[in-house]
Amino acid sequence: MTASRREKVEVVEVGLRDGLQMLDRLLPTKDKIAWINVEHACGVRRFEVASFVPPKLMPQMADAAEVVAAAKRLPNISVTALAPNLKGAAAAIDAAVDAIIIPISASEAHSLANVKRTTAQMIAQLAEIRRLCDERGRSVRIHVGLATAFGCTIQGEVREETVVHLAQACVDAGADRIALADTVGYANPAQVRRLFGKVRAKVGDRLHAAHFHDTRGTGLANVVAALDEGIRSFDASLGGLGGCPHAPGASGNIATEDLVFMLEAMGFDTGINLARLIDTQRRLAQWLPGQALYGKIAAAGVPKTYSTQAHAAA
Amino acid sequence: MTASRREKVEVVEVGLRDGLQMLDRLLPTKDKIAWINVEHACGVRRFEVASFVPPKLMPQMADAAEVVAAAKRLPNISVTALAPNLKGAAAAIDAAVDAIIIPISASEAHSLANVKRTTAQMIAQLAEIRRLCDERGRSVRIHVGLATAFGCTIQGEVREETVVHLAQACVDAGADRIALADTVGYANPAQVRRLFGKVRAKVGDRLHAAHFHDTRGTGLANVVAALDEGIRSFDASLGGLGGCPHAPGASGNIATEDLVFMLEAMGFDTGINLARLIDTQRRLAQWLPGQALYGKIAAAGVPKTYSTQAHAAA
Repeated sequence: MTASRREKVEVVEVGLRDGLQMLDRLLPTKDKIAWINVEHACGVRRFEVASFVPPKLMPQMADAAEVVAAAKRLPNISVTALAPNLKGAAAAIDAAVDAIIIPISASEAHSLANVKRTTAQMIAQLAEIRRLCDERGRSVRIHVGLATAFGCTIQGEVREETVVHLAQACVDAGADRIALADTVGYANPAQVRRLFGKVRAKVGDRLHAAHFHDTRGTGLANVVAALDEGIRSFDASLGGLGGCPHAPGASGNIATEDLVFMLEAMGFDTGINLARLIDTQRRLAQWLPGQALYGKIAAAGVPKTYSTQAHAAA
Repeated sequence: MTASRREKVEVVEVGLRDGLQMLDRLLPTKDKIAWINVEHACGVRRFEVASFVPPKLMPQMADAAEVVAAAKRLPNISVTALAPNLKGAAAAIDAAVDAIIIPISASEAHSLANVKRTTAQMIAQLAEIRRLCDERGRSVRIHVGLATAFGCTIQGEVREETVVHLAQACVDAGADRIALADTVGYANPAQVRRLFGKVRAKVGDRLHAAHFHDTRGTGLANVVAALDEGIRSFDASLGGLGGCPHAPGASGNIATEDLVFMLEAMGFDTGINLARLIDTQRRLAQWLPGQALYGKIAAAGVPKTYSTQAHAAA
């Protein structure tokens, strides 16, 4: 019963959304569903599987409802999807997601570029989505991802006070949970500790999760900093799938398998079987032949000192 | 004068030793010297430039004395070299290094594989090298790198008590400084905090530096953990040059440029100009065409939010 005494950390697979949305090619629906099934069998229980956006804008996400429905058939799973507006949120609710992720940029410049709305307009959208959820009487939760919280490739600096006030505005408008997202891979561990501390001081436990990219190699270092601030939920992408269209050769989200390796080695309980997860990364490479993948543990192999605990994997 | 108020962290370029020793090809002496010159101009002031070992065993290091002599011509530089035995140490002293690095493995299995001596025999060597330095009356310092301190690819687990006792034995035998080295990339941040804390409790400030590999993606995360334990000296290799002969595709030392980026972004003063360092990484790629390099910041680019402080670069 050693496993139960270890502190739990939640790992959220976002590759099907944040990883795939960058790709030129389409991953067929059946491969997306296979990916979710195989990774669920590794012990992963939270998946962000799609964006509810117009298929014309993002053909990769045209099968969002179908993918959500397939994922929801798995036991003990929590399925989330991104929705940037009321129409997308309505479709996500119809698809029976467990939570809607609303991206709200702390950088006005990024907000305009990404969703063609100001930050204030996005807060208004959030309030409308809150009303919609309440009207429908469904238990859909609303998570806000505070994008570019650590800086922005377009506008540069994002003031920490802006992020703190925005987090409070999101809570006031009805967000159940807040994540701070380093959308562009600018964050460093000192900044992570400072900003998570400030936002938590304002909104308490509504600050729930961290979304880090490894664009500049600091992804896992930032996870350590966020762990120190009490965060126990992290987004990651299998094989670090994602990249950045503005920086050739630059990687995207932290790799799920590297995150799980580090957390488990540190003594946290992710409930995920690492060896199986590495096998799943190799299957992803087959589904997306020629695709650049990142992360290190799959190539280097699991250390002899990595203890194999009793995992909750199905 | 803001720069002077920032806390200093020492970055030690070990690529010329730990990076090059793995390569099949030879880097010509003139290119080694150019590398040191160019990186010195970025503000790097500590270089581990060679191993004093039999040229038959390691042809890459046959020019050790010549490289040390060239490096020593640069202003304000500290030049170190590795020497695994008395003969090597004598040659290093003759070459006028500032410090000799003696590698002592915490894993007996690794010690036998690496230097064909037991750990106890290496402690005895260390004592003899101490006597040699004292006899010669030179101000050569002795640094011990405690290899495989976090685990070993051959024997697996290395007991923390073993590392603590070994550190004390090294101090007793005359080591001026101790570094804990994650030779095989097994360390995780929780372990780093624990082991650095235990060793410091035993030997105090003789525990001086950390040597991390990024084989499994945790390199910079481990730096954060060691910073928390008060460590302010880190080894790194430009472009992450090094790799591991036993793990194809696996990277080696943490990349100097990524380390400098993270430290400076966190508010530490390395005295190193990051933009110039990235240019130097590109020159390294020219000196070693086709060579796999690692690290992220060179491909991703420096963030808009990275403030350019007044650096001590020449």
